[in-house]
This record gives sequence, structure tokens and C-alpha cells, in this order.
Amino acid sequence: MNEHSGGDSDGYVTPGAEYSRDTHYITTRITADGRDGYPVEAGRYRLIAARACPWANRTLIVRRLLGLEDALSLGLCGPTHDERSWTFDLDPGGVDPVLQIPRLQDAYFARDPEYPRGITVPAVVDVPTGRVVTNDYAQMTLDFSTEWTALHRDGAPDLYPEPLRDEIDEVAQLVYQDVNNGVYRCGFAGSQRAYDRAFDRLFARLDWLEERLSSRRYLVGETITEADVRLFTTLARFDAVYHGHFKCNRGLLSSMPALWGYARDLFQTPGFGDTIDFVQIKEHYYIVHADINPTQIVPKGPDLRGWLTPHGREELGGKPFGDGTPPPPPRAQEAVPAGHGA
Amino acid sequence: MNEHSGGDSDGYVTPGAEYSRDTHYITTRITADGRDGYPVEAGRYRLIAARACPWANRTLIVRRLLGLEDALSLGLCGPTHDERSWTFDLDPGGVDPVLQIPRLQDAYFARDPEYPRGITVPAVVDVPTGRVVTNDYAQMTLDFSTEWTALHRDGAPDLYPEPLRDEIDEVAQLVYQDVNNGVYRCGFAGSQRAYDRAFDRLFARLDWLEERLSSRRYLVGETITEADVRLFTTLARFDAVYHGHFKCNRGLLSSMPALWGYARDLFQTPGFGDTIDFVQIKEHYYIVHADINPTQIVPKGPDLRGWLTPHGREELGGKPFGDGTPPPPPRAQEAVPAGHGA
Repeated sequence: MNEHSGGDSDGYVTPGAEYSRDTHYITTRITADGRDGYPVEAGRYRLIAARACPWANRTLIVRRLLGLEDALSLGLCGPTHDERSWTFDLDPGGVDPVLQIPRLQDAYFARDPEYPRGITVPAVVDVPTGRVVTNDYAQMTLDFSTEWTALHRDGAPDLYPEPLRDEIDEVAQLVYQDVNNGVYRCGFAGSQRAYDRAFDRLFARLDWLEERLSSRRYLVGETITEADVRLFTTLARFDAVYHGHFKCNRGLLSSMPALWGYARDLFQTPGFGDTIDFVQIKEHYYIVHADINPTQIVPKGPDLRGWLTPHGREELGGKPFGDGTPPPPPRAQEAVPAGHGA
Repeated sequence: MNEHSGGDSDGYVTPGAEYSRDTHYITTRITADGRDGYPVEAGRYRLIAARACPWANRTLIVRRLLGLEDALSLGLCGPTHDERSWTFDLDPGGVDPVLQIPRLQDAYFARDPEYPRGITVPAVVDVPTGRVVTNDYAQMTLDFSTEWTALHRDGAPDLYPEPLRDEIDEVAQLVYQDVNNGVYRCGFAGSQRAYDRAFDRLFARLDWLEERLSSRRYLVGETITEADVRLFTTLARFDAVYHGHFKCNRGLLSSMPALWGYARDLFQTPGFGDTIDFVQIKEHYYIVHADINPTQIVPKGPDLRGWLTPHGREELGGKPFGDGTPPPPPRAQEAVPAGHGA
């Protein structure tokens, strides 16, 4: 079962087993040439995300960095979904104001009445038909960068520059296996052996990243790329959730100084930290995963003030946005509520 | 239900309620004058403890510091008790070699066949009759200090000096309510509200201790006292268990530099750190409390190497053992197994 899906009531841990993520998604693409029937078009699509979810968080960051807010509207599900689906419980009346549906599953079933998989965020919905076009989160942000170019803001960075794509893909794959998904393999391990292996693999990769990031400001090249977006959303949740809830507890982020500096550097970069809602993140994990946290009590910690401390990473050189510029502040209606950030 | 008791299968958390510790113990005392029928006598009694348990850990430390090893023998229960009782599963044949019983409850029932409360460690057993004399852990260590004096080693420190008793009692009471028991009130809270209150109270007290310990090496006076023993056993478990398992996660100990220095100072003092078995501590909490950790998976973290780093607390003055001396190293048969310490 996908963690970013609406849950089923059986829980997330399969006793005796390793955690295995269902990686089958709806792979229809929205492209400049519309070859799958869905051409890039301003105002036609709606991105459905949840601030809690690290996979959806990628789309919030990339949409911000590229300035796609006007072209692609945003609907946000609340942090705790019910057994069937992520829901629009944050919206007035519990209904998405554009799609006019209470549950994200309604858009999945509009696409396929027999849709058999988890109802996941992020999803892009075709507003005229109310149908999910794609929930393939990994391709989604790459398409934002490469297919939606006509609708990018002035000064949008190139997050997936051609000459670096092989290296970005390679790093992102390692980060996915061992870190993005690795924390889930720790937390949802069904046996001590599966957990121990996942833990070792996670921290071996974090040590590798620590080494890599001690001499370079960003993961690939001299600027922020898709690879950084993907690592960041896991790091942002590390101390708040993965350390305790998923038992990724060799140490806090601060025990890896380069990674911790890197995470703060990105957090303080427009488009990253301003998408992070720590309240929703904690509520999501600690309430939804009742099989590993039966009391559903949400911890008050950690102290988050460290996120805003100086990181000193400018000394490593690099240009965050390359020849581009930082995005402007988020629109008021899309800002993380006061008290929910760092 | 007492956490240091053998569990009952109903679990530790009462939904909707605060955690409430049963503080009724068998209050018979072993005294120099034998007024309760149990005079201090070398070789007559056996201390039953478990390295995992913070309340029992106090007795291990005080027995070491005072050099009572020859006078008072030691039986150790394993870290994970069954539903009925702590057990002697670490001993050959699963039987305590002196008492010849498999479960600590057998000594409780020898005392009172209808014994109605939890089977707790520490307990002192009268070897000739096989009966528990007392399980009143708070009085137990004070009696080791004040009633067993004839059997103390040469150079034993005075852990409960007369002129400081009021202050020791006062500090120990605050530490008990908010810290020793406070971590359990966080971990076993049956509601978000009960947890939030316990968390605030715990960290307010830790902040108070941080302030107190920033200018003085020990809690009361210039030497190690009973007050330090009582705080230490909770601090030793803080990062390894309470931070994650009990959601005491404002920060790790290292976020409170004076407390962290103080904890390391004591850890590195003979009689303290050499009683700490991190493997048993983690196994105990994460396996026994299945209602808050249903997978019973034991975390691999934290990295424990920090415990042996320099603490610099000597600069604050003080004399750890007053006019006394440090205890010699633990006997081989009582040493914490290699790989179980820091």
C-alpha cells in the first residue's frame, strides 16, 4: 500500500515482511504537444496535493520555483485522510471549490470507475471532465520543468538541465531507494531483520550524502535541481517524524553537519521552506499510521527554531537559481498558516 | 499499573486518562536495629534488580558506590518480562541460582500468597525464607546509605548527608514528579491533552535543572548524593528510549548542554555508567510496551559514542566522592556485557 494513498484499515505494517511500495501509477502525461490527449494549457488543470505528504511536497516546491501558480491551480487535502481517500476537509463545506468533490477518490473514479489502487497525492485533474490525468509524481515534476516551459515565470530556474540529466537521475534513484522510500522501509518494517537492514541502508546513504555535500552546495552541478527537491522533502520531515515515528534514530539531522546545513540552506530558499507545514506533517504521520502509533498522540517536539539559523553554505559557491531568480513570496491564500512553519 | 512491574496484558495506556503510577509498596524495612524483624546482616539478603529498569538501576548504582557487593548478593532479571512477572531468563535453566525460582513473583507470593499488586523490581528478598522483604525502591537506597553503614566499603561516600537531607528530598521529589515519572506520563498518556501537559511539565523541569546545573557540578552540595543517582537513571535512558518511544522529543539531551555534560560526567564516574546496559534498556521498553509499539521492533539508534566524550565539568569544582574514594571496577560476573554499554 502506498503511504501517500488514502489508507486501508489494515494498516501499513505486514508482520514478518519488508515494506513494499506499490509503484504503479497512472502514467498519462500532460505535454506540450498533447500526445496523450492532454496538452499543456493554462487554467485547464488542477494540482491536488497535501502539505503533509513528501511526494506531493515536491510538486508544491517545483510549482513555486517555476511560477506555475497562475497556469495550474492548487487544491489541498487535509493531513489526515479517512480509510477511503484523502479528503478536502480543509475547504469550506469539505468540498474542493473548483472540482466540487469532497474526496480525491471522486476524481480517480471519474477517470476509472474501477480504479483499483491507492488514492494518492499528488494528482493532476483535468478540470472540465473532473478526471485524474496523472498521479505519477516522479514524472509530474519533470514535466513541469520540461513540458510546461511556455508557462514558466520570467526567471524560472532550469531544474532539469539537459547536460546533467543522467547525473540527476542517478542520484535521485539512489536517494529514492535508500532515503525517500528508505525511511518508510524503516518505519513499516514487519520484522526486526527488515528494519535493521533498512536502517543500515538509510544511514549508509546519508553518510554518502554527507560526504558529497561537504564540498558542494547542491547535489548535482552548481544550482538547485530536481535532485535537491527530492532529497529536501525527506530531510524536512526527518527530525519531526522519521527520527521517532519511523525509528530512524541514529541521530538527528544535526548529527550530519553538511546535510543539516544543506537542509537549512534549502529551507531558507524561497519556494522550499515556505511550503513546509510542520503541524500538518506531524498530524498526518502520527494520526494516520495508527498501527504503529495506536494512541495517535502527536508529539509536541521537536524544537524547530534551528531551521532558521545561519548555515554558512554560501561559502561553497554555487548559484541557487543559476541565471534565474528566486520566486516571489507565496500568495496569501496559498501561504502556510502562521505557527505551522519553523 | 507500575511500569517496573511485570505487565498485565491490558497494556500501559488508559485511553482518555492520564498515566497514574501505583505507588503502594511493601514498606517493611531492613534496618540496623532490625525493628521490622529484618536486621542488616551480611549474606542474608538478595537484591533482585533488572538492568533495564530505571528504578532498579538506582539500587545497582548505590550498591556499587557503597561497596555492598559482598554483603548483599545480586540477582538480575532479563529485560523482557512475561505477562505475570519479571523472570530469571538470563540465568542457566531460567532459575535464580540462589533463590531457585524462575519468576520474581514466586518470592512475592512466598511473602503473601494473595499479593495483589505488580511484581516490581527492585526487590530485596530474605534468602532463608525466600520472601520479599521490601520493594519500596525509594526507601531502599536511603536505607543502603543510612542503615547498612556497618557493611559499607572503606571510602564509601555519604550519599545522604544529614545536613543536606531536606534539600536532597526536596529536589528528588521535584525530579520524581516531573522527570523520573514525568517521562512515563508523556509515554503512557491516554489523551493528547494529558500528553501535552506532561510534556510541558517535563521540559519546564529539565530547563530548571539545566539552569541549576550550569553553575554547580552536582544537584545538592559539592558531592554526589542520592539526588544525582535518581536523576541519572532517567537521563541515561533519555535519548535511547524516552525521546522517541515516550515522545519526549523537544530535543535530545545534547540540546541542554549543562544536563548533557552532567549526565556524561556521572556516566564516566565509576558506579554509574558501568551499570548501564543500553541493549537491555532498549529491549525492555520497546518490546514490553506493545500497546505503544505494536511491532515490538527495537531501534538501532541512537549512536551512543557521545557518552564517553569529555564533559569539562571538573571546572565547576566539587568532589565526586567527598572524603571518600571511587569504587573499584565491577566484578567480572556483574559487569555489563561487552557491546551493551557506550
